[in-house]
This record gives sequence, C-alpha cells and structure tokens, in this order.
Amino acid sequence: MSGLAAELAHYDNDVRRIIRTARRLARSDAPLAAAIGRRQMAGGKRLRAVVALLCGRLCGQPDALNDKIAIGIEIIHMATLLHDDVVDDAPMRRRRSTANRMYGNAAAVLVGDFLYSRASQIFAEIGSLPLLAWIAKATNGLAEGEIMQLERAGKLMDERAYFDIIGRKTANLFESAAAAAALAGGRPPAALAGYGRHLGTAFQLIDDCLDYAGLDGETGKKIGADFAEGKMTLPAILALAKTGAAERQKMLSGWKARNESAFSDTLRLVRGSGALEETRRRAAEYARQAEESLRAEFSEKSCQNLIALARASVNRRG
Amino acid sequence: MSGLAAELAHYDNDVRRIIRTARRLARSDAPLAAAIGRRQMAGGKRLRAVVALLCGRLCGQPDALNDKIAIGIEIIHMATLLHDDVVDDAPMRRRRSTANRMYGNAAAVLVGDFLYSRASQIFAEIGSLPLLAWIAKATNGLAEGEIMQLERAGKLMDERAYFDIIGRKTANLFESAAAAAALAGGRPPAALAGYGRHLGTAFQLIDDCLDYAGLDGETGKKIGADFAEGKMTLPAILALAKTGAAERQKMLSGWKARNESAFSDTLRLVRGSGALEETRRRAAEYARQAEESLRAEFSEKSCQNLIALARASVNRRG
Repeated sequence: MSGLAAELAHYDNDVRRIIRTARRLARSDAPLAAAIGRRQMAGGKRLRAVVALLCGRLCGQPDALNDKIAIGIEIIHMATLLHDDVVDDAPMRRRRSTANRMYGNAAAVLVGDFLYSRASQIFAEIGSLPLLAWIAKATNGLAEGEIMQLERAGKLMDERAYFDIIGRKTANLFESAAAAAALAGGRPPAALAGYGRHLGTAFQLIDDCLDYAGLDGETGKKIGADFAEGKMTLPAILALAKTGAAERQKMLSGWKARNESAFSDTLRLVRGSGALEETRRRAAEYARQAEESLRAEFSEKSCQNLIALARASVNRRG
Repeated sequence: MSGLAAELAHYDNDVRRIIRTARRLARSDAPLAAAIGRRQMAGGKRLRAVVALLCGRLCGQPDALNDKIAIGIEIIHMATLLHDDVVDDAPMRRRRSTANRMYGNAAAVLVGDFLYSRASQIFAEIGSLPLLAWIAKATNGLAEGEIMQLERAGKLMDERAYFDIIGRKTANLFESAAAAAALAGGRPPAALAGYGRHLGTAFQLIDDCLDYAGLDGETGKKIGADFAEGKMTLPAILALAKTGAAERQKMLSGWKARNESAFSDTLRLVRGSGALEETRRRAAEYARQAEESLRAEFSEKSCQNLIALARASVNRRG
C-alpha cells in the first residue's frame, strides 16, 4: 500500500458512509442513468471527498454538512471523468471498461450532464449562495481547462500553459472541496482554498509522473496515455528543456508521430533527463505550500491529518 | 412569416440586447469555447428568452433581472443543443453544420459543459436560492429526459412515456423560463410555471408534427430526423393506434428497418391517419391550458402578449 492509500485507509468508514449516501442521492428514474451512475461511483481514491470532509471538520462544521459537500464534489468528479473518457475516447479506467465503451458516447455524455446537475441540486440544498457561486465558477473553470488541453493536444506546451491548464482542470476542484465548508459557514475560505489548490496541483504533477513512471498493475491505467493523447505534461516539458539539440529534435518528431516507438524514445529521454525527479520535487514543494497555507490559520495539531494527506499525496505510486 | 415568427418579431430589440449580453457573459479564455459559444449563439427562435422576459415583466421585475434570466435560460438551451447534436450525431442544425461536425465531439461536449456551468454562474449572481434550486432540478430533469429518450430509441412508445419524456426534456426549461422571475422575487411561481410547462408541451408537439409535415426550407431541418433516430413521437404513436392490423404491422417493421422506403411508408401512414391533425389539436389544447394558467393569477390585459405567444406557438411552420 502506497503512502496515500495507507493515509486514506483511516477514513474508510467515512468514505463508505459518503458513497452510500451519494448513491442514494444520484438515483434516477432513467435506468441507464442509474446504471452508469452506480458504475461510476464504484471506484476511485475518494481523495477529494476526504479533503472535503476533513476541511469541514477543521472548520467545526457537522458531518451532515461535510458529507453533503463531499458527495457533491465526488459527483462532479464522476461527471468530469465520464466526459473526459468520451473526449479521450478512453477504453479503460480503474481496470474496467469505461462507460463510453460499455454504453456508448451518447449515454456517457448525457449521464455526465445528469450527474453535474444532480451535484448542483445537492449544493443548492446546502443553501449557501457564496458556495453555489464558487462551485459554478469552479466547474466552469474545469470545463475551460479541459478545452484548453484539447486545443493544445499534439502541440508543444510551455510550463506556463501547463500550470494554467492543471490549475483549471484539477486544482480547481480540490480547492472547492477544501473551501466549501468554510464558505457554507460564512468563514473566510483563503487558508483552506490555498491548501486545496496546492494539494491539487501536487496531485496532478504526480499523476503526470506516473504516466511515464508508473506500473500498469498499480495505477490501473496504461502508461503513456498522455503521450498517446498528445498531452504534453511537465515531465516532457522539462525533459525537452534539458536535452541537447539532437535529442530535442528527435523528441519533437516523436511527438508528431505519436506511435509506439516514438513513445519508447520519449520515455527514455524523459526518464534519463531527471525530469521525473524534478517533477516530483516540484510536487513536494506544492505539498509544502499546501501545509503552509493551513498553518497560516490553523494550529499544527488541528490540521495534522490534512498535512499527512498532502505529504502522502506526493508519495504515491497509484 | 409564420404566426410565431411575426409574434416574436415584436421583441427583436429585446432579443438583440439579450443576445449581445449573452455573448459577453459567455466569453472564455479558451478560443475554442469562445468560437463554439459565438456560433451556437448565432441563431434560433429565442422563444425561451422572450418567455423569460415577458414573464419577468408581468411580475413587475426590472429588465436587468429579466435579461439575466433570459440569458441564463438561453445559454442552458445552447448547451443542451450542443450535447443533443453529439448524442444524435447530427450533421446540421439551423441550416449550418453542427459544432460536433465542425469541431468534433470532444469540443462539443466540453463547450456544452462550459456553457452549462456558465449559466449556473449567471443564475448564482442573481442570488436567489429558490431559483438556483429550481434551475438545478430543471437541468437535471432535462438530462434525464434525454437519457430516457435515448433508452427508448428504436422502441415502441406509448403516450404516457412520450409525455413523460417531453415534459422533462422540453417543458421543463420553458417552465423555468416562465417561473424564474417570480421565484427570484419571492412570489409564488405556480401560474407562470403552469404557463411555461403547457406552452413547452405545445411547442414540442408542433415540433414533432413538423418532423413529419414541415418543409425543409422553412424549418432548416431535414424531415424524418426523429424517425431516422428511432424517436417515436406523438404523430407516430397516434397513427399506430389508428391504423388497421396489416398497416400497423408494416409500420412496426418499418420502425425496425428505419431506411428511406420505411420512412416513406411511415410518412404516408402518419399523414393519412389524421395523426398530425390530432397532434396539432392536442397542442392547441395545451396552449389553451397555458392561457388558463395565466388567467388564474393575472388580468387578461396584463398577459395579452403571453397569450398571443402561446397561440402563435401552435400556429407555426418552423
């Protein structure tokens, strides 16, 4: 069990309770929506849900509220995965066939819409306008991040564009998970939002490392998915910056061809350049900033669990 | 110009103002989102926007609010059309290539998500919790209606299932357009919601007629789209109920084959059975109920424009 899995295991009972309620709240009169919703709800790390729960407890909010926020965030995440898998034409996720492969794109698109709007209903029930405005902005940013990623598919990217995209498509929802209970309670969300945003960035950096370094059996996804989809992530950006002119040229051609042999070359260059170590180092730095953000408002003791979670997030293999 | 087009022409200036602001509010840092958003915003009857505006005025709300509601509703409608065209793999809408055909499914899905969440931001700005809860429920119902329609594609349908689906996928958003200003003002929404719901049902019935009866040049869509997509609508349901055993069998086989000659046969049976007249008669009855709903709360004089709109909606050819 990786550091993160061990850390998350502490909250197994909470997660079970949250997912049980999420299943109930995502029910539908349409059998297809119910089936895909259940299927989509069946796996995953639930990191966003745990972040929402622990941040809510740190604000002194009751679990009735924290659970609801965790459920809303988790359902939004499920919806984004459904649409992402359509966008990427992905065949597998978490070692199972994707909904688009099992039920077709049409069903996956519509059930994604169903889940997004069901999450809006759940957040509306909480009854906080600042929270609703925040969540609407976050899901909008999320869609924009995905669109930007699509626009840049197969193209060179610099660090600035990369961080802009992951800020929108990943850090956004972590930030919302962390800040939601504070917002709902009329408390300034800055410290918790900062925690979530930095944690989300660290998490995405490690994800992007694992796509070059991970083992199939552990992550459940094929290595090289980002390369195959033309998504230039930080490891490739750093490797490109570090390699000599000849290898750089080779890597750029490989990026155009995007076949298996090009991936082998790119993998060798990325691994040989120290880019994975550098990406992990940056992730650790973001995790440290996540901790700092919490410490600006909360006592060390009160946020030990969130700090442990941030550290474990950069120390994971899946 | 059909009755509806003439009626809507009274509000051209209002619609221009609303769409201008909608364009501004749907701006994006992602060029693809901006391009598809602009394109999507370029046409359409704007009936939902006009309903929102006139109902808002009937409630005595200022146009600043009414416009915002109209924009939010119109943007939701644009998002549903983007996703519907992906779901139906539609090549054309309003005499132009669809976004999915021009930019691909991935872009159409993500820009749909972008528009949905942008609409949520606009409604969140209005700052009414009852309105936000209502809109979330409506968009959720909308997705469910589309899913149910997909589940039943190519299958026989009875009137009950048909009205359940159009209630969710069409009447829902008209109902929201009509009730939104009342909700935002803390006023009971029942009369206006009833108007919108019945108007939306009437509107969909006529749409379903036009798919068997309309002329390409007027509606901008190919006749027979519903048949080709396996969507059994009221004209076919009524025709099936009215034809003799032999013709019924022929129609059912045609429904399985769904080729051009099957469509010719179905068209002949639908047209010959009086089902189109009966569907129009039912639409007129819904329009009458829409009027009645208004009269329960408002003076005849104050809601003349909405009554004219309801009558014109069933007297249209595009």
